[in-house]
Amino acid sequence: MIYFDYNATTPVDEAVFEAMSPFFCQIYGNASSLHQSGRRARAALDEARHKVAMVFNVHPKQVVFTSGGTESNNLALKGLSALLPASQLIVSPIEHASVRVPAHELAWAGWKLLMPRVNEAGLVDLEDLERMLKQKSGLISVMLANNETGVLQPVSEIARLGKKFGAFVHTDAVQAFGKISVDFNSLGVDALSIAGHKIYGPKGVGALIVREGIDLMPVLTGGSQERGLRAGTENVAAIVGFAEASKLAVENLSLTNRLGEYRDQLENGVLALGGQIFGKGSPRVANTSYFAFEGIDGPKLASRLNDFGFCVATGSACSSGKTEPSSVLGAMGISESLARGAIRVSFGKQNIKSDVEKLLSVMTQCLLTMGMDTACI
Amino acid sequence: MIYFDYNATTPVDEAVFEAMSPFFCQIYGNASSLHQSGRRARAALDEARHKVAMVFNVHPKQVVFTSGGTESNNLALKGLSALLPASQLIVSPIEHASVRVPAHELAWAGWKLLMPRVNEAGLVDLEDLERMLKQKSGLISVMLANNETGVLQPVSEIARLGKKFGAFVHTDAVQAFGKISVDFNSLGVDALSIAGHKIYGPKGVGALIVREGIDLMPVLTGGSQERGLRAGTENVAAIVGFAEASKLAVENLSLTNRLGEYRDQLENGVLALGGQIFGKGSPRVANTSYFAFEGIDGPKLASRLNDFGFCVATGSACSSGKTEPSSVLGAMGISESLARGAIRVSFGKQNIKSDVEKLLSVMTQCLLTMGMDTACI
Repeated sequence: MIYFDYNATTPVDEAVFEAMSPFFCQIYGNASSLHQSGRRARAALDEARHKVAMVFNVHPKQVVFTSGGTESNNLALKGLSALLPASQLIVSPIEHASVRVPAHELAWAGWKLLMPRVNEAGLVDLEDLERMLKQKSGLISVMLANNETGVLQPVSEIARLGKKFGAFVHTDAVQAFGKISVDFNSLGVDALSIAGHKIYGPKGVGALIVREGIDLMPVLTGGSQERGLRAGTENVAAIVGFAEASKLAVENLSLTNRLGEYRDQLENGVLALGGQIFGKGSPRVANTSYFAFEGIDGPKLASRLNDFGFCVATGSACSSGKTEPSSVLGAMGISESLARGAIRVSFGKQNIKSDVEKLLSVMTQCLLTMGMDTACI
Repeated sequence: MIYFDYNATTPVDEAVFEAMSPFFCQIYGNASSLHQSGRRARAALDEARHKVAMVFNVHPKQVVFTSGGTESNNLALKGLSALLPASQLIVSPIEHASVRVPAHELAWAGWKLLMPRVNEAGLVDLEDLERMLKQKSGLISVMLANNETGVLQPVSEIARLGKKFGAFVHTDAVQAFGKISVDFNSLGVDALSIAGHKIYGPKGVGALIVREGIDLMPVLTGGSQERGLRAGTENVAAIVGFAEASKLAVENLSLTNRLGEYRDQLENGVLALGGQIFGKGSPRVANTSYFAFEGIDGPKLASRLNDFGFCVATGSACSSGKTEPSSVLGAMGISESLARGAIRVSFGKQNIKSDVEKLLSVMTQCLLTMGMDTACI
């Protein structure tokens, strides 16, 4: 098996697993307990919080641990909006469902939900967003890197606009973290979501980084953990692993250069086969390639590649059980017929150069058997 | 160190850790991905769901995995109430905060929150509850075993009353599961919460078992996982561990006999020292003893015991950072002065008979140095 779906999830790094392992059977205390067993857990939790804070250049108390990216996004949208009077809510149409759905829930609850245009290159239209801000807006949420295209959004400009017009700005950095340098303060946002399992950390853990002095309402209630912002016994092992993974993500950032080479190598091949690459002209994370061949069904191609041992995605993992074409590509104005062909290859640590050659070779065969016009091959 | 705080949290069983270990670095796919890596994760998730369903004698689709007991309780109260018109909500005053706080949130949102009386033995007053039901009530939540006293509540009778008067009934079985036999259908409730880390499983995972055909609104949204009832990439490793722990919890239920002997041995010693035992006359889980010595400060005694290497709690772990006396004891009508002395000893797998003797011996010394009248010793 060759895995090309690192944007869906990553294996846990061996060093991360080693860091978290003692916290299952040996150091198992409840971090809220006052006895020595609890204190050992609390010390590990404090250290993990400090580690994550260092990575984002923030104070440890700005780190709110959650059960993952979805919860972080829910906490940002539901938690920030709960303390504001309903006004405008600006959310890009290419957000992950864990931002889009809470946004729609707010719309049902009286907020006016606006979605700025996205251009064909996958970038949120800043002018359109600025125009929307002329009406009183409470909250903006635009992701840092899109999960499907990998396109980087102009979040620091959006944060500047948000500040100017008095709106809170949240960014979902789940897909950007570990692929580009993410500095909370330089971005200028009020809240930022990250998740463990996209950075070679465990599933079931993430964080919301919040600006100092910011108030938000918890989504999960009934416990004073995480400064009252997230109730529930702290998942010490996962948090320790997540912190270690965060540290390693920053240390290993140069890895992305190698992945960028693989991506370029793949895309040259895809173009030679007559494919179209989504977001190619835009600033993108280095590991992600999203493309389609006109007339070729994406899920069918992915399924054939799977038969040969290659794991690729046909859209975001969360929606790959459905048959609708990607809403991200829809927002970019890509035709439905082309969007139905979308294949996402996302590289990661364990990929090697020959993986790309193998993928291209097998993909060529698959396309031939799927009846693609071979003249261009 | 001798650990006597198994109600706060438990170490992960070695067999559980072994079961979950491959799902960090080896079988790491996203269970929503359609390729072979995703399918392996999905198969493990399906098997885990089946295992938990078997334990509770329910259909696998009745099992909704969550990030823990707090989230399960939040999902039950917020999720069930969201689809009902606001009416009466009946919640016992001895519930865990993750039930009580959501109940108060519902009260702010227009529900009429009623709390039935609890007697001095720690039992919810059924007559008082039945009287409340004469007014149209939407939802009842009463726990199966109290976390502090260990007292078992008459949940099947409450479920029967709920059915009779047309109210949904939820029970928080987090502290009961693994200590008594819990059969979802015999209880007759509509929803039941459980958590991994109270049954020698991992932290950060739990489940809400729901009656077939029941509708509830998700709390975490933006993903179709768990039949749309809980968005977020499935925490496969933790879920696999939790399922294994659930299976073992049932297989090892006879262990509780041994723990009951330790409990009785401890309580005989406590009574001989002039202590008072809370909930002693009531049906209780076998592993829990909750007691106090008049005039002796609980946190101080716990701290001294900790100096000697004994981990005991002074109330529920979640509130042990606070100095207010236990609200559970308050609801039972225990005087504040006695409640301030409360010590909870909760036994578990790794305790041996000599642990009890050691604890009693050291506790006697501590009480002496704390100035307790020694005449009774």
